[in-house]
Amino acid sequence: MKVLPGFKFNGIASGIKKNGVKDLGLIYSEVPAAAAGVFTTNRVKAAPVLISQKRMRSGTAQAVLVNSGNANACTGDKGMKAACQLSTTLARRMKIKEEMILVSSTGVIGVPLPAERIQGNIPILIGGLSPYKIGEFAQSILTTDTFPKIVMKEVEIGNKQVEIWGVAKGAGMVMPNMATMLAFVMSTASVHPATLRNLLKDGVDQSFNRITVDGETSTNDMVLMLVNGKAGNSVLTKNSKEIKKFRDALFSLLFELARMIVKDGEGATKLVEIRVEKARSVNEARTAAFAVANSPLVKTALYGEEVNWGRIMAVLGRCGVAIDPGKVHISFGKVKVVKNSVACGTEEKAQEVLKGKEFAIVISLNRGKGSFQVSTTDLTPAYVAINSSYRS
Amino acid sequence: MKVLPGFKFNGIASGIKKNGVKDLGLIYSEVPAAAAGVFTTNRVKAAPVLISQKRMRSGTAQAVLVNSGNANACTGDKGMKAACQLSTTLARRMKIKEEMILVSSTGVIGVPLPAERIQGNIPILIGGLSPYKIGEFAQSILTTDTFPKIVMKEVEIGNKQVEIWGVAKGAGMVMPNMATMLAFVMSTASVHPATLRNLLKDGVDQSFNRITVDGETSTNDMVLMLVNGKAGNSVLTKNSKEIKKFRDALFSLLFELARMIVKDGEGATKLVEIRVEKARSVNEARTAAFAVANSPLVKTALYGEEVNWGRIMAVLGRCGVAIDPGKVHISFGKVKVVKNSVACGTEEKAQEVLKGKEFAIVISLNRGKGSFQVSTTDLTPAYVAINSSYRS
Repeated sequence: MKVLPGFKFNGIASGIKKNGVKDLGLIYSEVPAAAAGVFTTNRVKAAPVLISQKRMRSGTAQAVLVNSGNANACTGDKGMKAACQLSTTLARRMKIKEEMILVSSTGVIGVPLPAERIQGNIPILIGGLSPYKIGEFAQSILTTDTFPKIVMKEVEIGNKQVEIWGVAKGAGMVMPNMATMLAFVMSTASVHPATLRNLLKDGVDQSFNRITVDGETSTNDMVLMLVNGKAGNSVLTKNSKEIKKFRDALFSLLFELARMIVKDGEGATKLVEIRVEKARSVNEARTAAFAVANSPLVKTALYGEEVNWGRIMAVLGRCGVAIDPGKVHISFGKVKVVKNSVACGTEEKAQEVLKGKEFAIVISLNRGKGSFQVSTTDLTPAYVAINSSYRS
Repeated sequence: MKVLPGFKFNGIASGIKKNGVKDLGLIYSEVPAAAAGVFTTNRVKAAPVLISQKRMRSGTAQAVLVNSGNANACTGDKGMKAACQLSTTLARRMKIKEEMILVSSTGVIGVPLPAERIQGNIPILIGGLSPYKIGEFAQSILTTDTFPKIVMKEVEIGNKQVEIWGVAKGAGMVMPNMATMLAFVMSTASVHPATLRNLLKDGVDQSFNRITVDGETSTNDMVLMLVNGKAGNSVLTKNSKEIKKFRDALFSLLFELARMIVKDGEGATKLVEIRVEKARSVNEARTAAFAVANSPLVKTALYGEEVNWGRIMAVLGRCGVAIDPGKVHISFGKVKVVKNSVACGTEEKAQEVLKGKEFAIVISLNRGKGSFQVSTTDLTPAYVAINSSYRS
């Protein structure tokens, strides 16, 4: 089994969730690691977001404590105290500075975090830390996800083997800005903190900020990245010759994690790329792509495998982009179904594309050079079932 | 049975829909009527929208031809020709000017209108016109609606009895701007055309533009109003003493029709008012209210009768309004569940409210004096079922 030199992990059941399901995870770096984070743009921010955002300013961190089953959001001063209490306990037990601990939560909003119960399990959490428990950690952060999400990459930087591991969770309240989920990236690379921040921000823009499950941006989103320098490469900065190699590996890892989140979107049976081309600008393409990707009528038609391209036209017409209503082309996969806003008579072929599990819908607005692609899911009875009994 | 002096109606099956379901309706005014219309803001406009919008400029009309089962949208030049062909036939047969005929369509987008088949049924449609067939007309314009929507009002204007009748259809692609549906209002009042236009526009803003089923604005929306003056009141203008009485009756009719549309929203089991208060402005309140009213997570929680107010907080935080995340109050009916953004411990009482079929969720942002109310529905498995097999 692979290890990530200098990092240890654990994931246990601390009693937040019922039936002994794992709900508490820990990432530990043996040395202080350079760290960067991207946090939710939701104005309602959970306590752990506020705390980690503040602690991230130093650009270093050594541990990440994550719980699922409770978002610790809209919990007021008590929520802040609960989160701090846990990180104080962890700091004392691990003999590291409290400011080196990042915290992260996901789950139901507005319910007090059972801090006492969690606190009692911290010794067990620390005691079980191991280089081999990335799987346990990945399990412990899940909510409605149906599978754990881990991606591992290797890249050679200046003759040194650099490892990058990423772990993420979805699966509802997923819509960028930034993408609405948790992800943790650990690497043995040595990277200058400012470079790391920029890399992570750009990488998130290219990946998690281009997915949606339900158009909802959560109160708890965060992507954290810790690099411990164990690979022994000379410190990467934006001017390093080999920064592109590292960026490519990191971006491809983030992209794969983001796709896993969409694929495991609540109730999803399909992963659909919505690509808008020839918009006047990238912004305009983004607006149109997200409007289509979040449309309940488009998403239910995807679930039903119906070639109902009229719904896409209707969304394009209402999304605020000044489209020319007579100039739109739409393809399902490689099958052109709409040319200049009217049907091509290829519905049977398009229907075959829709039966697939993964395909693209390409929309050309024919008014410029901007393009943007969003990954989305279908809207299914299972989505409704999951979310109408979330707290039960 | 009541009649509306000077107006006749009919609704028949013309073969657009399967199994002999009514799909073609006609409203006829014996005299040229003063007319006003409000049309969809979707940039993709169906052929009948473009035609009726143009003909409405004269401020008079004498007939409205409506079909369901086919939107005649995204059908290109052929769609325009098909709609014109039908109104030409109707004009000849009825011996009225073609410009006096308004057309309206609802149903699937992008499928050619079977104009020949419809045309063959126009003589039957005209032959069956009757003052008693408002019910048949109301049936003929339905799509996924489960019940016809008719509201009748009487109001005394200058000792004359004035009647106002309204007919509408929903039930999906419903979201204002303007509200996404068809509605037809007929009255025996005498109203100055400019006054009528303003009244209708304001009335629609207060009613249809404050509802949503799924956040989708259709390509075919229109509200048309015809007044024939048969009541014999002196012409109402904005300065008339009794304009307020007429406005109140009209607005209450429009409001009732709009509520019927939400109540009959696709798959809906609940009618919920989302009222945002103490926003900095009405616009801000509108933005927040619609974001909550269209949130799939809020709407699935409503269906599941779950007191998941955290999802409302999350929507408020992401909706673009600069809320103070610590100052929000939320009530379900009369039960306050959130004070200053944290739980009040009243979930059991709130749960009782959620079990009702109709209730209000009141959100106070505590940052100003703007308020806005939106009527919405829950998101149910039936919505997904209806819309994943719409064309089948």
